[in-house]
Amino acid sequence: METNTCCSREGNVAREHINIIKVGGGVVENATSLASLLQQFSVMPGRKVLVHGGGRLATSMATSLGIESHMVGGRRITDEEMLRVVTMVYGGLVNKSIVAGLQAKGVKAIGLTGADGDVIRSHRRPLKRVKMDDGTEQMVDFGFVGDVDKVDASLLAQLIEGGMVPVVAPLPHDGEGHILNTNADTIASAVACALAGHYEVTLTFCFEKAGVLRDADDDNSVIPSIDEEQAARLIGEGIISGGMIPKIENAFDAIHRGVKQVVITHSDNIDGTKGTTIKV
Amino acid sequence: METNTCCSREGNVAREHINIIKVGGGVVENATSLASLLQQFSVMPGRKVLVHGGGRLATSMATSLGIESHMVGGRRITDEEMLRVVTMVYGGLVNKSIVAGLQAKGVKAIGLTGADGDVIRSHRRPLKRVKMDDGTEQMVDFGFVGDVDKVDASLLAQLIEGGMVPVVAPLPHDGEGHILNTNADTIASAVACALAGHYEVTLTFCFEKAGVLRDADDDNSVIPSIDEEQAARLIGEGIISGGMIPKIENAFDAIHRGVKQVVITHSDNIDGTKGTTIKV
Repeated sequence: METNTCCSREGNVAREHINIIKVGGGVVENATSLASLLQQFSVMPGRKVLVHGGGRLATSMATSLGIESHMVGGRRITDEEMLRVVTMVYGGLVNKSIVAGLQAKGVKAIGLTGADGDVIRSHRRPLKRVKMDDGTEQMVDFGFVGDVDKVDASLLAQLIEGGMVPVVAPLPHDGEGHILNTNADTIASAVACALAGHYEVTLTFCFEKAGVLRDADDDNSVIPSIDEEQAARLIGEGIISGGMIPKIENAFDAIHRGVKQVVITHSDNIDGTKGTTIKV
Repeated sequence: METNTCCSREGNVAREHINIIKVGGGVVENATSLASLLQQFSVMPGRKVLVHGGGRLATSMATSLGIESHMVGGRRITDEEMLRVVTMVYGGLVNKSIVAGLQAKGVKAIGLTGADGDVIRSHRRPLKRVKMDDGTEQMVDFGFVGDVDKVDASLLAQLIEGGMVPVVAPLPHDGEGHILNTNADTIASAVACALAGHYEVTLTFCFEKAGVLRDADDDNSVIPSIDEEQAARLIGEGIISGGMIPKIENAFDAIHRGVKQVVITHSDNIDGTKGTTIKV
């Protein structure tokens, strides 16, 4: 893996480096792993952005409120009640806990949903054909779920150049008064791609596993680097499966859209020195 | 009442005008009054900041979660569970709903708790002597409640001059990783005083009443203007009572600390043309 440099030269234009760290719900909901993540993130030099999920924290809050989580084909339906829960949990509890935690370590963090400063605009996902458990297909309305249209990289760059560190919740808005719910990997990838117009970007997906694994139960089976052809083969063989598939898709999407380096790694190694590097 | 001007001159320095609008929980928790407030706020010209409460929305969310609200001498105790609730409700649900609603009206709103950008620093309130219902006095620990130390007016001004409209939740932080809960009137007053170093500030407290009333049940009994001596007398006579007392105290505090104009009025009249004006 190439060492992160603080800047590189393309033509004659010096481009500063930036780290976009995406941290998953599984890390965020565990106090020990979150503390480790925040400690590592706080000492990471240079420009940086943190994008977080929230995962099961929203599900457990919904359960406490007596709100049922509706899943179709393994994916959550965000109805109005669930949207209120994710807005509270991701936009309030998780985002502000991370921001306050980083401030305590001297990081000038600023929490953002997509609505804040109109930084991430999206539209509500149209009905989608989904394969059901019984093998049939159905058109499904996922509710208040957003597909990203636009990230305002200029605003992010303005905040970053002002010395701030954006902490981004996976809640874009539609410009018509509605917060929407979006997968946090997708938000991280969209933010990284938008910032690639301003910086040399490293995007690091951090989660509870050591990287892309040959054996899902063995953290010693990390695949150190992977290209699109290998990824397609491993998906075909069922070695890459479940939630790793959209993560890999987001990773390749980012590389194709100008992100310099993408790494999938354990949240204990956010400097990207271990884990799986995505190859073009 | 003096007309709001976009700027005035003190010495030779032109000072731009800014409106700080504080909107109470009673307005925020009612969809109709909130919509009216956001509409008025969106067409208000010039620089502006919105500070919001959340009031009973936190209490009802706590009740839904089976968390008891502890009150001592009429004031809420913010224990750890209640702090999680206010962080979710004020910092997430209320703040992001307002921000998304303003964005839909073309206002470049950005939501902030005190932790975001380290914009409002506070310390945990020490034990306080409180008069109980039975007339005795007790030392009470209000829990995770903050007394404001410092507002970063430079950061607010930087955002405002960048075309943004801060929407501030009443949640400062202590710089040690904790969000704290603070009365929203106090936050509005602290923000207004800090910004008085940069702008000519009008601070407007908006709530469900037409202003400071001679008869609490009669919206036609508005006292058009009030000075500190009159206020003290009306408090002594029991005409000003309850939650209006700290509101009046915050209002005079703001005037003494450089805020140009303070108005207490109904949320249907946020331009300050009606209501009660605080006199020096």
